[in-house]
Amino acid sequence: MISGENYIGSKRSAKGSVQFKTFNPILNLENEHTFTEANEAEIQEAVELAHQAFLDFQAISGAKKAEFLNCIADEILNLEELIPTYMNESGLPEGRAIGERGRTVFQLRSFAELVAEGSWVEARIDTAIPDRTPLPKTDLRKMNIPIGPIVVFGASNFPLAYSTAGGDTASALAAGCPVIVKAHPMHAGTSELVASAIITAAQKTGMPEGVFSNLNSNGIEVGVSLVKHPKVKGVGFTGSIQGGRALFDLAAQREEPIPVFAEMGSINPVVLFPEYLEKNAESAAKTYASSITLGMGQFCTNPGLILGVESSGLSTFISTLGEEILTIEPMSMLHPNIEGNYQKGLSMMEQEQVQVISKYEADVQSNFARQMVATVSGAEFLKNNNLHKEVFGPYSLVVRCQSIDELHQIIQNLEGQLTGTLLAEGNELSQYQKVVNALRDRVGRLIFNGVPTGVEVCPSMLHGGPYPASTDSRFTAVGIDSIQRWVRPVSYQNWPDQLLPAELQNSNPLNIIRKVDNADSRDKIG
Amino acid sequence: MISGENYIGSKRSAKGSVQFKTFNPILNLENEHTFTEANEAEIQEAVELAHQAFLDFQAISGAKKAEFLNCIADEILNLEELIPTYMNESGLPEGRAIGERGRTVFQLRSFAELVAEGSWVEARIDTAIPDRTPLPKTDLRKMNIPIGPIVVFGASNFPLAYSTAGGDTASALAAGCPVIVKAHPMHAGTSELVASAIITAAQKTGMPEGVFSNLNSNGIEVGVSLVKHPKVKGVGFTGSIQGGRALFDLAAQREEPIPVFAEMGSINPVVLFPEYLEKNAESAAKTYASSITLGMGQFCTNPGLILGVESSGLSTFISTLGEEILTIEPMSMLHPNIEGNYQKGLSMMEQEQVQVISKYEADVQSNFARQMVATVSGAEFLKNNNLHKEVFGPYSLVVRCQSIDELHQIIQNLEGQLTGTLLAEGNELSQYQKVVNALRDRVGRLIFNGVPTGVEVCPSMLHGGPYPASTDSRFTAVGIDSIQRWVRPVSYQNWPDQLLPAELQNSNPLNIIRKVDNADSRDKIG
Repeated sequence: MISGENYIGSKRSAKGSVQFKTFNPILNLENEHTFTEANEAEIQEAVELAHQAFLDFQAISGAKKAEFLNCIADEILNLEELIPTYMNESGLPEGRAIGERGRTVFQLRSFAELVAEGSWVEARIDTAIPDRTPLPKTDLRKMNIPIGPIVVFGASNFPLAYSTAGGDTASALAAGCPVIVKAHPMHAGTSELVASAIITAAQKTGMPEGVFSNLNSNGIEVGVSLVKHPKVKGVGFTGSIQGGRALFDLAAQREEPIPVFAEMGSINPVVLFPEYLEKNAESAAKTYASSITLGMGQFCTNPGLILGVESSGLSTFISTLGEEILTIEPMSMLHPNIEGNYQKGLSMMEQEQVQVISKYEADVQSNFARQMVATVSGAEFLKNNNLHKEVFGPYSLVVRCQSIDELHQIIQNLEGQLTGTLLAEGNELSQYQKVVNALRDRVGRLIFNGVPTGVEVCPSMLHGGPYPASTDSRFTAVGIDSIQRWVRPVSYQNWPDQLLPAELQNSNPLNIIRKVDNADSRDKIG
Repeated sequence: MISGENYIGSKRSAKGSVQFKTFNPILNLENEHTFTEANEAEIQEAVELAHQAFLDFQAISGAKKAEFLNCIADEILNLEELIPTYMNESGLPEGRAIGERGRTVFQLRSFAELVAEGSWVEARIDTAIPDRTPLPKTDLRKMNIPIGPIVVFGASNFPLAYSTAGGDTASALAAGCPVIVKAHPMHAGTSELVASAIITAAQKTGMPEGVFSNLNSNGIEVGVSLVKHPKVKGVGFTGSIQGGRALFDLAAQREEPIPVFAEMGSINPVVLFPEYLEKNAESAAKTYASSITLGMGQFCTNPGLILGVESSGLSTFISTLGEEILTIEPMSMLHPNIEGNYQKGLSMMEQEQVQVISKYEADVQSNFARQMVATVSGAEFLKNNNLHKEVFGPYSLVVRCQSIDELHQIIQNLEGQLTGTLLAEGNELSQYQKVVNALRDRVGRLIFNGVPTGVEVCPSMLHGGPYPASTDSRFTAVGIDSIQRWVRPVSYQNWPDQLLPAELQNSNPLNIIRKVDNADSRDKIG
């Protein structure tokens, strides 16, 4: 079923000259299919189709969009080749593949529910006051509408949930924006399969041609060309700081700048408070040995930095972590390049003179990562920003601070992070309020007595954070509120009721919650 | 009372070497006070104070912030010198001054009401499901928190409502962000007076030192330095495309990019449909002669472009507009520079071979603007993008299209606009749906049978629009939703109830509307 071609709308196309294959890191072999990178003409055609599709798609009802999104979920579940292809292209185990597919389907259905219900458009209505003095007030009504075609970059570490039909695509389609996916080259086959499900769903539910395209690429050219295209109106990205920042810069330099939501690197600091450590050093070390190596450390929320104050508790934590981490069997990383970068990251840290606590030394298969934990003093960490860098993989750095004040200072000097975790006993959260506040200032999500890995899909999730965790801390990449990235409000002044969008009509035919003359209700007007 | 000094927090300071005066355009004379531009040390001090103030201010209750905002409004109304100073520095009449002060006070009180009520933080709560399979779900709660110190640039054309205590400042303070105003040099005295009111209110209501500063500047250096400062986290601007884009670029090039909301130029297209014109050409021309010259055309929403299809109705509209525009008495513009730029704009349009319909030719006082209306064919307008440029002042261009199709094409090729107006009869809005949709795609606010001038302050107002109307079409500069520019969501996972912000606690002590397990309510939890 995998053809290696691009989807330009519903049409398969492979006119380009650059070809590539995906790689099975467990077998250490290329996979069988050959993929053809989209050429400039195909990129132009996909964007033009998306632009044309937008004219109709933006006006399609929430109920129809819900049908489309639910149908995508159904079609993904129908893809027989999906799980084996995913495994062949990522080296990830079947349980993870099935779990991630479940998450992807759940996300699609969550957005279907959101747009079927309809209140997400944030309708605000201020009725006319013709006899107001000194000037009459005219009727004014506002709601969110989609901004236009969105480019979504597939993420290396989530071939399903943050890629072709992942959160960015689901939220953009739910908003009414056509989507062009730049498939991640590491899982081009997975992307093509998911794309076929989206295309089938679009056809079955009568969506306009061009509402979705899937473009292959093995380098940066396709992505650059898409982000610079005047008819592209927004970008979703999950990946490295370098990649995300490059796209942000391109988008900001356009004649018409467009929003880029890039969810990027993070070392997800974990703070161990003294009393907690005294009582729980061993159990915390065991929990964190698992969290650090979960998915071979290839999660955005991997805990790469652990902060504690010198104490016997901290020493116990460090020694136990060192032992526990060695009990975990190494597994394959996603790709030889990722494993290679992990090795470079470890070498860099060793050059920066971290003190290795323990490192898995036994022989492993090609592309398998050997986990490592290291430690450094607070003073060193404060002096050397290289130690703040993310090492993507099963690595974490334990910083031994001289005092809570030094720990506080370190947090104040951290770059923005997706998450910050506090392990605290009894009243330590209030006792060290200053530390908690400083951490809150640096992160998108605060976790008490838990691990940062595991990103729940629900309205209260904030997956993002201050730069460089994301390029815009005002939005989330996960959860229904992520739809807000792709919409803009528009006001209708003095508009004839029957010509307003249904969301704004007096009779409230969709029965949505609206703010009418400053009060929320589902009431009809007049 | 005007000292000419900066407010660095509550402290007056004038250490810089650059001095300047404001100008009375009606008397064509400099005003008496001498202002001292903030120097680099003062800028650093103001930002550092704002940064420190943020640590406390972000945690202050909505009730206390409401007290502060209402007190600012009261103190502004107490400023005896304000109205004469405003008039001396702008040449605007007393009625406008009083009206704009009323608008400013109303905005402050609207935000006070918003934050006193408290639901604006968009609390979302997803309670724990300990027995969920395969994994338990932990408690997760999210709300909006302020992003940090904001720099607000005063606008030349609204010395009160879009300047020192205008919409940007009011919304940022309401969000919990300290504000540093870069006062507009044309009305530095007005800014100082308003700043004194804010400082007094901050002291009376116990706000932290540094929550507000007001910096004088006569060039671009102070603004550049502020936008580049690492401790500044957002920017509000109202003014020219050139100025707004320069700030946007600076902010995007920072190591940590920050959001810039710039509300910039617009020519606010007005579409005259055929049947409407047939019946209402004369009355529409009279209405628009007033709208074009309102405030000497110095409104962001001034109708600078009028589109119609060749017909006897359009000819009547053009000739009547030409007559009516001459019956209006010219008034002073805000400043000789603005009047000079207006003259340059008119000359540019004449060089681009617009056909002048009529121009006020009689002698006028220095700095008074002579209104002008001109016309051009649709074909010319399509060919020549210079004709799309904003001429800030009492000027408008009537484009005579050959057909609705040509008019449609022109709209599709327009830059983003704050507003788009449709003058239509009976079913013309539905008959020309394609034109309406194309216009909606280009604007932030659609107006039916009205004028774009007049920007109501209410929840349903969208003041902004696709670039270059604004730098981010997803936000508004006017109305309570403008607070969304200055906040970011943060999630609390598994957090002890009593240590959560009040907005997220089980007992809902503030009685705000929250989304709890996906349903909106003011209910307590558990």
